[in-house]
Amino acid sequence: MAESPAAIRFGITGCADITRKVARAIKLAPNATLYAIASRSIDKARKFAAHNGLSGAVKIYGSYEQLLDDPCVDAVYMPLPTSLHLQWAVLAARKKKHLLLEKPTALDVGELDRILEACESNGVQFMDGSMWLHHPRTAKLKDLIFDPKLFGQTDFIRSTSTLPGTQDFLESNIRVKPDLDALGALGGLGWYCIGAILWAKDYKLPTVVNALPDVIRNSAGVILSCSASFHWEPADKTVATIHCSFLSYTSMDLAMTGSNGSLHCNDYIIPYQENSASFDYTSGAKFVELHIGWNVKPEEVTVTSELPQEALMVQEFARNAENIRKFGNRPDSKWADISRKTQLVLDAVKKSIDLSCCIVKSIASKLQDNVTCITCPVPDCSGALDIEYCRPIIPEDVFDRWGKALCESVVMDPRRKYLYCPYNSCCC
Amino acid sequence: MAESPAAIRFGITGCADITRKVARAIKLAPNATLYAIASRSIDKARKFAAHNGLSGAVKIYGSYEQLLDDPCVDAVYMPLPTSLHLQWAVLAARKKKHLLLEKPTALDVGELDRILEACESNGVQFMDGSMWLHHPRTAKLKDLIFDPKLFGQTDFIRSTSTLPGTQDFLESNIRVKPDLDALGALGGLGWYCIGAILWAKDYKLPTVVNALPDVIRNSAGVILSCSASFHWEPADKTVATIHCSFLSYTSMDLAMTGSNGSLHCNDYIIPYQENSASFDYTSGAKFVELHIGWNVKPEEVTVTSELPQEALMVQEFARNAENIRKFGNRPDSKWADISRKTQLVLDAVKKSIDLSCCIVKSIASKLQDNVTCITCPVPDCSGALDIEYCRPIIPEDVFDRWGKALCESVVMDPRRKYLYCPYNSCCC
Repeated sequence: MAESPAAIRFGITGCADITRKVARAIKLAPNATLYAIASRSIDKARKFAAHNGLSGAVKIYGSYEQLLDDPCVDAVYMPLPTSLHLQWAVLAARKKKHLLLEKPTALDVGELDRILEACESNGVQFMDGSMWLHHPRTAKLKDLIFDPKLFGQTDFIRSTSTLPGTQDFLESNIRVKPDLDALGALGGLGWYCIGAILWAKDYKLPTVVNALPDVIRNSAGVILSCSASFHWEPADKTVATIHCSFLSYTSMDLAMTGSNGSLHCNDYIIPYQENSASFDYTSGAKFVELHIGWNVKPEEVTVTSELPQEALMVQEFARNAENIRKFGNRPDSKWADISRKTQLVLDAVKKSIDLSCCIVKSIASKLQDNVTCITCPVPDCSGALDIEYCRPIIPEDVFDRWGKALCESVVMDPRRKYLYCPYNSCCC
Repeated sequence: MAESPAAIRFGITGCADITRKVARAIKLAPNATLYAIASRSIDKARKFAAHNGLSGAVKIYGSYEQLLDDPCVDAVYMPLPTSLHLQWAVLAARKKKHLLLEKPTALDVGELDRILEACESNGVQFMDGSMWLHHPRTAKLKDLIFDPKLFGQTDFIRSTSTLPGTQDFLESNIRVKPDLDALGALGGLGWYCIGAILWAKDYKLPTVVNALPDVIRNSAGVILSCSASFHWEPADKTVATIHCSFLSYTSMDLAMTGSNGSLHCNDYIIPYQENSASFDYTSGAKFVELHIGWNVKPEEVTVTSELPQEALMVQEFARNAENIRKFGNRPDSKWADISRKTQLVLDAVKKSIDLSCCIVKSIASKLQDNVTCITCPVPDCSGALDIEYCRPIIPEDVFDRWGKALCESVVMDPRRKYLYCPYNSCCC
C-alpha cells in the first residue's frame, strides 16, 4: 500500500516467526511504514529482510539499542521473549517510541505496571498484540452479545486456545523455556482465552479465579497445559472457563450463552480464512411441542475484511500515535487498561496453579507412619480427609502412596460386584 | 406403525410431560405397543389418554400397583419423580416387568444398585431414558471419535445442558422439589452432560471429580445450576467439563478435541430437527504459512433418521426384552452398566458440591476477633490464608466480612492507581 508521508514509521526489535506476519501487516496498514528492523546479530536481521522481501529502504540494525536510538523510529513492534519485555519496553518508552508489545505483555502485573508507567510518563501509546480484537467480526460479535434483546445477559463463556506442540517445540522452543517465556501455554495461549473472557464481560474483572487440577508442566516447570474457571461477585452469575495447551489439537473456540441467545465461534483468534470470518448464533431458542426439536436453527453471520486483522491492529495503533503527534493528544489508555486486566487475571490463574496446600505435608507424614484413614489437620475437626477431594492439591507420588495404602480395604468391600477402584496404578 | 403380534407390551406409570413423547415413541417403534397407562388418579390417566389420542384399546389404571399386577404388561416405562424410583422400580422388577426408567435413575448409586439387583435377580432388562444415545448421529459421532487417524486420542470434552426455567418452574416444578427430585439440575440435566462425557471416554471412569464454585441452589437447597471438571489417571490427560443449569438459555453443546481432530455438536440431546441431525468436525487442522488462516474448514456431517431417537430407544429396549422372552437370554447388562457409571459420577459431583471445608469455621472465629491476616489452621504451617483461594469454600457472609475487614488496607496500597478491589460490596 502506498504510504502517506505522515505514516508512522515502525521499528521491529526481534526476528521471531510472528515478526513476518506483523511486518506484512505494517506494510498493509495505510498509515504505517516499516522503517527499521533489529536483531541481536546484524546477519540475522539481514537474512530476515532478504527472506521476507523487505524493501531495501528498511534500515537493518544489529542491536535493539541502535534501533531505539534512531530518532526516525516513531513506534516499535516488540516480539521479544516475555522475560525481556520489561528491560526493552521501558527503554523504548524512554526513547519516546510508541509501543506495540507482543503478548503476554510481562511476567506479571508488577512488571507490566513499570512498562505502563514508562509509557505514560513519556506520553507514548501502548498496545499489546491481541490482533483478534481488531477484526470486524469481533465488533459484530460484540454487537450481538451486548444486544439485550437478541442475546441478553451473558451467563456462560468458554474459550480455548490449544496447539499441538511437536516434541522439538516442547523441549526447545522459547515459549516453553523458563528463562524466556516462563508463563508457557498460560502466557502464550491463555492470554487469548483470558482476553476473550474479559472482552465478553466488558472488562469487568472476576472475583474468583480457580485453576482446575489438570495442569501439566515440562521438566523445567513451565506450564504446557492448564484450565481455569472464573466467577464474578454473587449478583453476577456468569461462569467462564478457559483451556490452553501446547499438548492438544488446534482449537480456538469461543462459546457463550446469554439470557436470550447463544453463539459459537470456533476460530476466534485466527479465522479459518483471512478475508472472511463467521460465527453461529441462536436467539429465542426453545423446544417445539413434545420437545422433539427446536423452534430455531443456528444462523451464520459472515463478516468480510479488506485488511488482515494484524493490519487493522497496526492501523489503530498508528492512528493513536498520529493523534498524539498531530494534536498533542494523550495516549489512549483503553489498550493499556485491557492489557493490564488481562495480565492481572493471568497472574491470578498462575497463583491458583502454583498454590500448594500445607495439607500435603500432613498427608505425607501420616503415610510414612502407615496411617490410611487421615483426619483433617485442622484443630477441632474430627472429619476424615477424602482422597478424591485431596487429589487436586497433592502431588502424584503422595496420591499414589495413599491410594495404594487404601486399595486393599476398598477392594475387600462386600459390594465388590459393582466396585470401581479409582486409585492410580491399581490392578483391580 | 402396525404392531407385530409379538410386540412388547408397554405399561406407563405416570402422566408426566415427557410421557407424551415416549408414548408416541412406543407407538412408532415397530416391536412395541402401548398396552396400559396408570396414574395415581384414574381421571388423570383418562384425560391423558384422551388428550393424546391414545387408542381405546389402551388400558387405563388408577394406580401403579394395578398396572404392575397386569400379567399382560411386559415392560414398564417409568417417568416418576426420582425419589419414587426405588420403590416402584424394584416392585416393577419383582413383577417381572422389563424396566425403562427415566433419568436420573435414582437419588444415589446405593438406590440404583437395589434397583439393578432387583432387575438382575428377576431376569428383566434395565435401561434408562437417555434417548440421545440411540440416535444414529450418536453412532456416527462415535465412529469419528474412535477413529485413530481422523480424531485420535480424546483429550478435551465439554458438554452442557441448560434450560431457562420460568419463575413458576423454579418455584414449583417437581424437578426442583427436595422431596421429589432432590438432585435438581444436576439430576435432570447433568445426567446428560455426565453421560456424554462417559460415552466419549468409552465409559472409563474419571479419578477426580471437581465441582466448580458456581453452584446455585433454590431456597429449599435444590441445585439449580452447577459446573464440574473431570480428570482421569495421570497417564490419561483428558479434561472434561460440564455445565448444567435451569437458569440459563437453552444449550446442548458437545465439543471435543482429540490428538488429530475436533468436533462440535450443539444439539446433542435433542437435535434441532427430528428427522435429520448434524455435527461439524475438523481433522488434521494446522495453520497455513504466516499463520493467517487454517488449512481446513469444518466439515458438516448430516445423519438422517427414519424414527425419532425415542422410538429407536424403545425399539432397542424391546429387542432386548424379546431376546429374553424368545431365546431365554440374560438381560443385556450394557445399559445397566452405563446407568450405574453415570449415577456414580453424578454422586461424585454432588459430593464435591456438598463438601464444606472445616477451614470455614476457623476463618469465622478469627473474624469475630477482628483478625484479618488469617493464618492456615494446619499445625506447623505458618502461611497466611488467601481470601481469593478460600472464596469457593466459604459462605458468602463470611467472605463478605473478611473482605470488608481487608478492604481498607488494600485500598491504601501505594499502587492505588491501578488498584482493583475484588471484595464483594466494596465501594472502591
